[in-house]
Amino acid sequence: MHIQQATNDELQAELQSLQTQYSQLTELNLNLDLTRGKPGSSQLDLSNALDGILQGDYRAADGSDVRNYGGLDGLPEAKALFGSLLGADPAHTLIGGNSSLTLMYHTLEFAMTEGLAGTASAWGNADTVKFLCPSPGYDRHFAICEHLGIEMITVPMLEDGPDMDIVEALVNEDSAIKGMWCVPRFSNPTGCVYSDKTVERIAALGKQASENFLVMWDNAYTVHTLNPTAPALASISEYCKKLGTADSVFQFGSSSKITFAGAGVAYLSSSERNLSALKHHLEYQTIGPDKVNQLRHVRFLKDTATLAKHMAGHAAIIQPRFDAVLQVLDAALADTGMGNWTKPAGGYFISFDSLPGLAKEIVQLADDIGVKLTPAGATYPYGDDPQDCNIRLAPTFPSLEDVQASAEAFVVCVKLASVKQKLLEA
Amino acid sequence: MHIQQATNDELQAELQSLQTQYSQLTELNLNLDLTRGKPGSSQLDLSNALDGILQGDYRAADGSDVRNYGGLDGLPEAKALFGSLLGADPAHTLIGGNSSLTLMYHTLEFAMTEGLAGTASAWGNADTVKFLCPSPGYDRHFAICEHLGIEMITVPMLEDGPDMDIVEALVNEDSAIKGMWCVPRFSNPTGCVYSDKTVERIAALGKQASENFLVMWDNAYTVHTLNPTAPALASISEYCKKLGTADSVFQFGSSSKITFAGAGVAYLSSSERNLSALKHHLEYQTIGPDKVNQLRHVRFLKDTATLAKHMAGHAAIIQPRFDAVLQVLDAALADTGMGNWTKPAGGYFISFDSLPGLAKEIVQLADDIGVKLTPAGATYPYGDDPQDCNIRLAPTFPSLEDVQASAEAFVVCVKLASVKQKLLEA
Repeated sequence: MHIQQATNDELQAELQSLQTQYSQLTELNLNLDLTRGKPGSSQLDLSNALDGILQGDYRAADGSDVRNYGGLDGLPEAKALFGSLLGADPAHTLIGGNSSLTLMYHTLEFAMTEGLAGTASAWGNADTVKFLCPSPGYDRHFAICEHLGIEMITVPMLEDGPDMDIVEALVNEDSAIKGMWCVPRFSNPTGCVYSDKTVERIAALGKQASENFLVMWDNAYTVHTLNPTAPALASISEYCKKLGTADSVFQFGSSSKITFAGAGVAYLSSSERNLSALKHHLEYQTIGPDKVNQLRHVRFLKDTATLAKHMAGHAAIIQPRFDAVLQVLDAALADTGMGNWTKPAGGYFISFDSLPGLAKEIVQLADDIGVKLTPAGATYPYGDDPQDCNIRLAPTFPSLEDVQASAEAFVVCVKLASVKQKLLEA
Repeated sequence: MHIQQATNDELQAELQSLQTQYSQLTELNLNLDLTRGKPGSSQLDLSNALDGILQGDYRAADGSDVRNYGGLDGLPEAKALFGSLLGADPAHTLIGGNSSLTLMYHTLEFAMTEGLAGTASAWGNADTVKFLCPSPGYDRHFAICEHLGIEMITVPMLEDGPDMDIVEALVNEDSAIKGMWCVPRFSNPTGCVYSDKTVERIAALGKQASENFLVMWDNAYTVHTLNPTAPALASISEYCKKLGTADSVFQFGSSSKITFAGAGVAYLSSSERNLSALKHHLEYQTIGPDKVNQLRHVRFLKDTATLAKHMAGHAAIIQPRFDAVLQVLDAALADTGMGNWTKPAGGYFISFDSLPGLAKEIVQLADDIGVKLTPAGATYPYGDDPQDCNIRLAPTFPSLEDVQASAEAFVVCVKLASVKQKLLEA
């Protein structure tokens, strides 16, 4: 049944059937959760060897004792390994603590209050600071902006990344725009991979935008492919080098979804100027990050080949969960006109778009029967999805059985909301 | 020879002898370093069992998986263990990452920009914010203030803590004073322990000082005794409870000098109001600290009795280094009128006061023969020791042999500078 082609009688019959299904789901007293992009415990098990891997050998490759103080920007071997994941020169890489969110927050706060190129360059000198937020996007990015008083402008996400025509027009006409958020590979939540052309155009923004414009390149899922045919991502560093815009990009990543979500290693890369300014800022608040954990990670992940094998282990666990959701969506909603969804080749999310105006209701319907979904609107700045249609599905954390059950409940909620709305319109 | 009683001839003879000794030291091509309060590698060896201690069991006492995201304020068992070191209720304790300096920085930055009791309470709303800095004190405390634009007022340190008559007079007369730094047990660098009366008077400042006055109670060396007769520290929480001033104190500590200097666990404690405000601030920049490392520490240090035994292991390594310095100072400088020094019962430093106006020269003389000392002035706000007399000696990191050699070279420099000055005066 396609919702736009169904007769009133057909819709009424469908409503009755859906209400029965929904009642039956209520009786199951479900307690399911598809909210956050957390690895499941079998994924975490893949890295259990981390604790104990040093076997009493706490010496870094340069002979330094990782147990002691020192080394604000991390171990050279960690810079080499994690810098390579960003396509960055180790000399332009900084290793942090356990959270890339922390590195992103400090970068923005620093750019706001102290300025990447001296106090005169601090964004906060101006009354209004704006940021471009390709959406649907990541709620924690938006929360940082809101917390720091940065005004957010929603930019549409296309299948190959942000709508660059709109982005370029905006940065050309409004000098208050000081940066843009990007999750370039397996974007949160759409799972799209930015095309080479889009990466090049983003690298070129530093030439067109206002001074000290900053691309926040959160490459959180760079090695998180679900299958070997997943599209590659062009190197933004390479484009920046060609265009002379290295100062306009900060790249971020972490091993949170490679090893332990809460006890991984975060890293960033930018130009020499930016790194040196940021380090000067950081040295007031820390003597240095946890180098013991960095050394554990280097000994465990070794090199990009070993890391790739390790990531294949993740994919083997996650892929069936993604497949389960996609199969249920396909079986229940294909050709019904009741929604569209992404089929990502990597990352942690499936992005679902309902008919306009229904996301909040669907999330509420699911919640009422014990299926927690990411709050509708969370994927947009200020929690405000103008179409009220986007829902982020995160299938990694629950068991395969629970993912299956959640998806089956979800599609009933989608259909129920859609048919109800259609009947109200009629 | 007492320098004030020596004849000119005696001083001339002494000068000649000292110049010979200094020349001989020059020829040794020494390369010694007494600058920073770092544990030595044999101290770090005491905690080598940390890596691997979990033996694959990554479950916290409450059954939660420490490998995953979550838990902004740390593991309950870590709160219980480390809170007890601060004499704090676990419910009023927050566990951070690897650095108490980071916790201190964020607390001050937050009080400056956002306010502990809402934006109206932000110190930064006023043009001038001042802090009391008992000195000699810790250079990194002073650097935070300077970086955040907080004006520092030097307050004298006595043998039982800051000169509280001066502190009370200052906070009563100047409402721009918003807080005070304290290292209450084995103060950096004097090694003094605050008396009960001083702790009580500091706890009472919250009643007399301007609103949102904050005591930064950096209890870095709380369990770092060199011998079992070291004086105890009164609980500031207890006094605050009695006086109703819990909002005026933040306590800090870390395991940096208990386990691994760069890979320990930091913690803080304050009132419910302050903790809740700080947590709201932190949640924008982190999902949570490294709980795996917290669990390692709890499994390793277990309880206060096990921890005390562990600290005795540190004392056994450090005590001979302190003794070596003190014996050399005593043998060379007792009853010479050329300096005074502390004989701490714990902590990481010996504080040496030369004759006025000589600290910079002594440090330079030492540097010229390959003995690095903490820069003169570093123990005062803005690096400015008004008497130019204080030198911080940090004997923990070098080998016992090197500590001995450093101390022997140091006293030659002290004497040389003192005798030269005396002859110039004559």
